[in-house]
Amino acid sequence: MKNTFGTNITYTLFGESHGEAVGIVIDGLPAGILIDQKFIAEQMDKRKAVGKISTQRHEADKVEIISGLFEGHTTGTPLTMLIKNTAQHSNDYQSLRYRVRPGHADYTAHVKYHGNQDYRGGGHFSGRLTAPIVAAGAVAMQLLQTMNIDMGTHILQCHQIKDNSFSDNKATLKDQIQRLKETEFPVLEPAIGKDMIQFIEKTAHMKDSVGGVLETAVINVPAGLGEPFFNSMESTLSQLLFSIPGVKGVSFGSGTAFADHYGSEMNDSFIYEEGVKTATNHNGGINGGITNGMPLRFTTIIKPTPSIYKPQNTIDLETNKEVSLTIQGRHDPAIIHRARIVVDAVTAIGILEAITCSQAIEPFYS
Amino acid sequence: MKNTFGTNITYTLFGESHGEAVGIVIDGLPAGILIDQKFIAEQMDKRKAVGKISTQRHEADKVEIISGLFEGHTTGTPLTMLIKNTAQHSNDYQSLRYRVRPGHADYTAHVKYHGNQDYRGGGHFSGRLTAPIVAAGAVAMQLLQTMNIDMGTHILQCHQIKDNSFSDNKATLKDQIQRLKETEFPVLEPAIGKDMIQFIEKTAHMKDSVGGVLETAVINVPAGLGEPFFNSMESTLSQLLFSIPGVKGVSFGSGTAFADHYGSEMNDSFIYEEGVKTATNHNGGINGGITNGMPLRFTTIIKPTPSIYKPQNTIDLETNKEVSLTIQGRHDPAIIHRARIVVDAVTAIGILEAITCSQAIEPFYS
Amino acid sequence: MKNTFGTNITYTLFGESHGEAVGIVIDGLPAGILIDQKFIAEQMDKRKAVGKISTQRHEADKVEIISGLFEGHTTGTPLTMLIKNTAQHSNDYQSLRYRVRPGHADYTAHVKYHGNQDYRGGGHFSGRLTAPIVAAGAVAMQLLQTMNIDMGTHILQCHQIKDNSFSDNKATLKDQIQRLKETEFPVLEPAIGKDMIQFIEKTAHMKDSVGGVLETAVINVPAGLGEPFFNSMESTLSQLLFSIPGVKGVSFGSGTAFADHYGSEMNDSFIYEEGVKTATNHNGGINGGITNGMPLRFTTIIKPTPSIYKPQNTIDLETNKEVSLTIQGRHDPAIIHRARIVVDAVTAIGILEAITCSQAIEPFYS
Amino acid sequence: MKNTFGTNITYTLFGESHGEAVGIVIDGLPAGILIDQKFIAEQMDKRKAVGKISTQRHEADKVEIISGLFEGHTTGTPLTMLIKNTAQHSNDYQSLRYRVRPGHADYTAHVKYHGNQDYRGGGHFSGRLTAPIVAAGAVAMQLLQTMNIDMGTHILQCHQIKDNSFSDNKATLKDQIQRLKETEFPVLEPAIGKDMIQFIEKTAHMKDSVGGVLETAVINVPAGLGEPFFNSMESTLSQLLFSIPGVKGVSFGSGTAFADHYGSEMNDSFIYEEGVKTATNHNGGINGGITNGMPLRFTTIIKPTPSIYKPQNTIDLETNKEVSLTIQGRHDPAIIHRARIVVDAVTAIGILEAITCSQAIEPFYS
Repeated sequence: MKNTFGTNITYTLFGESHGEAVGIVIDGLPAGILIDQKFIAEQMDKRKAVGKISTQRHEADKVEIISGLFEGHTTGTPLTMLIKNTAQHSNDYQSLRYRVRPGHADYTAHVKYHGNQDYRGGGHFSGRLTAPIVAAGAVAMQLLQTMNIDMGTHILQCHQIKDNSFSDNKATLKDQIQRLKETEFPVLEPAIGKDMIQFIEKTAHMKDSVGGVLETAVINVPAGLGEPFFNSMESTLSQLLFSIPGVKGVSFGSGTAFADHYGSEMNDSFIYEEGVKTATNHNGGINGGITNGMPLRFTTIIKPTPSIYKPQNTIDLETNKEVSLTIQGRHDPAIIHRARIVVDAVTAIGILEAITCSQAIEPFYS
Repeated sequence: MKNTFGTNITYTLFGESHGEAVGIVIDGLPAGILIDQKFIAEQMDKRKAVGKISTQRHEADKVEIISGLFEGHTTGTPLTMLIKNTAQHSNDYQSLRYRVRPGHADYTAHVKYHGNQDYRGGGHFSGRLTAPIVAAGAVAMQLLQTMNIDMGTHILQCHQIKDNSFSDNKATLKDQIQRLKETEFPVLEPAIGKDMIQFIEKTAHMKDSVGGVLETAVINVPAGLGEPFFNSMESTLSQLLFSIPGVKGVSFGSGTAFADHYGSEMNDSFIYEEGVKTATNHNGGINGGITNGMPLRFTTIIKPTPSIYKPQNTIDLETNKEVSLTIQGRHDPAIIHRARIVVDAVTAIGILEAITCSQAIEPFYS
Repeated sequence: MKNTFGTNITYTLFGESHGEAVGIVIDGLPAGILIDQKFIAEQMDKRKAVGKISTQRHEADKVEIISGLFEGHTTGTPLTMLIKNTAQHSNDYQSLRYRVRPGHADYTAHVKYHGNQDYRGGGHFSGRLTAPIVAAGAVAMQLLQTMNIDMGTHILQCHQIKDNSFSDNKATLKDQIQRLKETEFPVLEPAIGKDMIQFIEKTAHMKDSVGGVLETAVINVPAGLGEPFFNSMESTLSQLLFSIPGVKGVSFGSGTAFADHYGSEMNDSFIYEEGVKTATNHNGGINGGITNGMPLRFTTIIKPTPSIYKPQNTIDLETNKEVSLTIQGRHDPAIIHRARIVVDAVTAIGILEAITCSQAIEPFYS
Repeated sequence: MKNTFGTNITYTLFGESHGEAVGIVIDGLPAGILIDQKFIAEQMDKRKAVGKISTQRHEADKVEIISGLFEGHTTGTPLTMLIKNTAQHSNDYQSLRYRVRPGHADYTAHVKYHGNQDYRGGGHFSGRLTAPIVAAGAVAMQLLQTMNIDMGTHILQCHQIKDNSFSDNKATLKDQIQRLKETEFPVLEPAIGKDMIQFIEKTAHMKDSVGGVLETAVINVPAGLGEPFFNSMESTLSQLLFSIPGVKGVSFGSGTAFADHYGSEMNDSFIYEEGVKTATNHNGGINGGITNGMPLRFTTIIKPTPSIYKPQNTIDLETNKEVSLTIQGRHDPAIIHRARIVVDAVTAIGILEAITCSQAIEPFYS
């Protein structure tokens, strides 16, 4: 499996940034699900570029479903979603064929594919490939909604500006997730969001870019999901998260705090409150790789967009000589606010994977 | 796939802490490899308990190969390694059947398996399952050695005590990896190691436990490994790392520094020095999910061992009443020094996975 | 995996007979392969309806490659082939929504997908789905040609009319395979082909349909392909062959003759003739599930097309009442002459699967 | 995947004929299943050698469960079954190291594994590997019994002696399956069984061997199992059946009769009798690759045992010279009566695979 993920429901991703289309085949969906195309379109919009702090490449990002849908419902056979590329400026990239951009996959793709990759705009490695992932995630979310599973992601940190963390209070957390759905720039504290936007604009002005940390919470996840080895809940989510271009770190629950605290501080005591709960949630809803019924909590480190307008040193692969490179074209000074919806999408895909694997043998429990 | 990892070479893990044996089936190995059983035994030794700072459960950890080996060489058919359990004190656990230990998988396993799990010593979720992983990793390492790929892991941080980071100098890094092989307590700076050991002993005395951060480096990894989506080099390694009990975070290259630095600071310029290299290695040897030929670099957060001797609050699953729990038995106040060899093992497994997937189509390149 | 096949090179099939398009994503192809689109078009033509003995639905069957191809060569990233549906007469099927056609998947799809399947023309179960399989097979054949692997399939039997079997002589067999490429109605003995065509026309006139047996030979298959259990060469080929609509039997080598002959008659003695060969080839080039270097030989039973113009008894799923059904629309009185190219396609896919699995570990052999 | 089968429940097979043990890891079983070890032992007995018509190698075939079982019930974690080899006469094989036995995997294993295979008694290719398959099948059968799914296999043909076919009458078929469980030599017509045994004894006397055809029926299979492409019910069963050593053909329903009958003869009309049924069952319970609720029916061609005592011609791989070979040791003149229980086992495994894949998404149907 290279560009396919999943066991019972599988996702096969295809396309290049400057090719005819990007898309995804989702196979194994239950039949008869009314696909909410308006919801898919809204998710696509959240992934899109916003104002001055994003690329000026504007794609319609219209999702066409060319198989697996009949009379508005899933048929149970493979659902194929196509997103045509319409706003490519391929000429911007011609000079980059052999001048590999630092921080990008240009060089590694060149080695891996022996120079045959579609180099334009990063080809298959482009952030554009996250468009079909978001569309697929929207379908996964629809299924999860039938179990009341919901999720949200905000910018916990952008350079040195920090947002509040998600609340430990169940009702407050639910509200925070709801409000994130309605927010264009995803922070819990609006004033901090303004600071971040200002900082990103300043960074853009400096011809530079910036990254940050996203924090995600998922509520109403049933206990018992995940498999002990190789497919722990953390394994599945991290496999998916590290597929998102720009992700360089993933940690669950209290993350780095596990390194400098005692066991007595980090163990979550069990309590009974209309079911088994934990008094704290340092473990982010996961014990031994299996969900424990508490909200899932994790953070994702997003690196600064590698495309910057400052001159950079690189080599020309035709001559192996070092050259100065100034990237042209349209780029984001930050992608972190757009990445949040991709993180939500793969989270939905990952949890649905764990649920379906768990359900497969359920009928044999009497 | 639940307890199986891999595409061309697969690893199927089985066993429980207090069952008859733990083991692993490795399928798809090339035939005719002389298995170095002494090397396997050495790796097993590094995983074992050390002195006062480790559990007093002492297992022989003798690896028996019961299939797939003939006249000392691999046959090409499934290689099965068994490690018999010999030093179980199962009685220590009887009182824990329904009194779930905080921070452990006791509760989540109970839910997942509807109360039928082998609860003794964590059953299949026990750190004991890392013994066959280490044995399998030793076999993977033997294959990687034919490509000069080598790796090492040290304790970068234990509570608030910090070791130096790996060197960026290629020769020094090679030496550091070599020295780690000969070290019982894996740090780059011996004096710091003494401080850490002292701190762990003090923690044990307090009936508490402690975690930390491991740093891993892999050298001579060829460029071009990993697959763009879902199976990026980071995806594969993180999937494996998050299978190790106690791992709560994984980050590549400069990790958290990506969050508060500019793109111009974090992009690694390409240079030419007997091949394409990067001037810095903030990206940890991976661009766009694909290896770039520089050393792989990543860190792993290990949580404090959840078994502590202090009384803790929990609930009894038979009565749903809260109870005070004092764990008996033999436990580690820290596992981070033992975990490093498990991290090395899954790293070897992950890189071998990426190599074999890449090689499968190689003959069609002329 | 539902509609995906393969380990290192994967094929994901999608589409419905009367939807917008059918297609396939091929992932894992080596990069830099010049795709011969004329060859693909020729294969598509061989699958098409021929003269009076085939359906009057005429599709252009133009294969559009919308990803994974750059400057005419494979990029190494997923190659997506789309074949738009253009000649649907969906109205022909409206009356069939609940009147399930005997011998078809109408009823089983209705149960499996809880009534949500696209029932028009068999939906995803239509023979139309073999179009992208043929296109994918053409790509696989291009890779196999670099190893001189070639294959051909002819109609060994149509009702009671029988063609000669493939020759055991290597040079003659090569000629026979070559001639089948140039033949519209695939038989070794042209006079017999005329009889079969006449018989099929007569059958059409009777408003009935007919099936038969296909025989396939593959030459220059290297020895050593296939895996002992679950993925023997026979397992892989039969898994693929039984995915072709209408296939009801597969046997290798001498097939039914194994049932009524002695071991001494059916064992193939080894001889040495510029390499190890067998004196006879009763085992069809496979011993113990692994190829032995002799030509692969197998037969495939194709059932009569279930769509016939005679009235048939069935039930109406809305009322559970028995009704008489007369199928309208455009149908083939026989598909066996069209199926041969689908059999060739999946054979190519199966052999390429075995080769790539075998190659994955090859570099570790010194 | 090489020696692993399955999606939600996986089976990993290991071992060699003359190694320490053969075995299988079953992963993904529901927890809490009381494993009926007596039933497993009975199945093992049916696979064993019977009287004069079987090999004189007598193995205890005691199945030890070394993981995944706790207090007699499955734990939900990998269940490992070991069957120790105790009655090897490895010396019988020393002379065969380079003298490859016709009809066996000796030569193909030698090529595949570059001469490193365990050549003794066929190594991993031995029929001995069917012992753990039978044990695993017994576990799968236990799960299927909760759905009343049952199956039986008889010898339809042994050389030219033919048994009756399974009845189309539901009650009679159920009785036939029940009686086969109690029969050592599996035929529907006892007198015919005596003839077959006599014929096999005569064949043994001639130092020769004989094969035949098995017929299998499965009752109470729910409609809707199987996936349209690549994993049709026929694909899954044939993949498994062709993993059994000696199987050379598989056909479903009326098999070869599909080749020489009209569509109007072979289509099964739908009728309503306490549910949707078909008036006939030519399609063997499968339409379009999906089960239709009628009994599954298929036949399997078993080749004559390749080990015969007559001298045969072969080559010596050390010298590439042709030599005469007379096989020593203990062999079966026929394995067809033993193979039937292996066919039952993989049938159970295949149906359980289809059920669990189908169940995975069931909760999303409201």
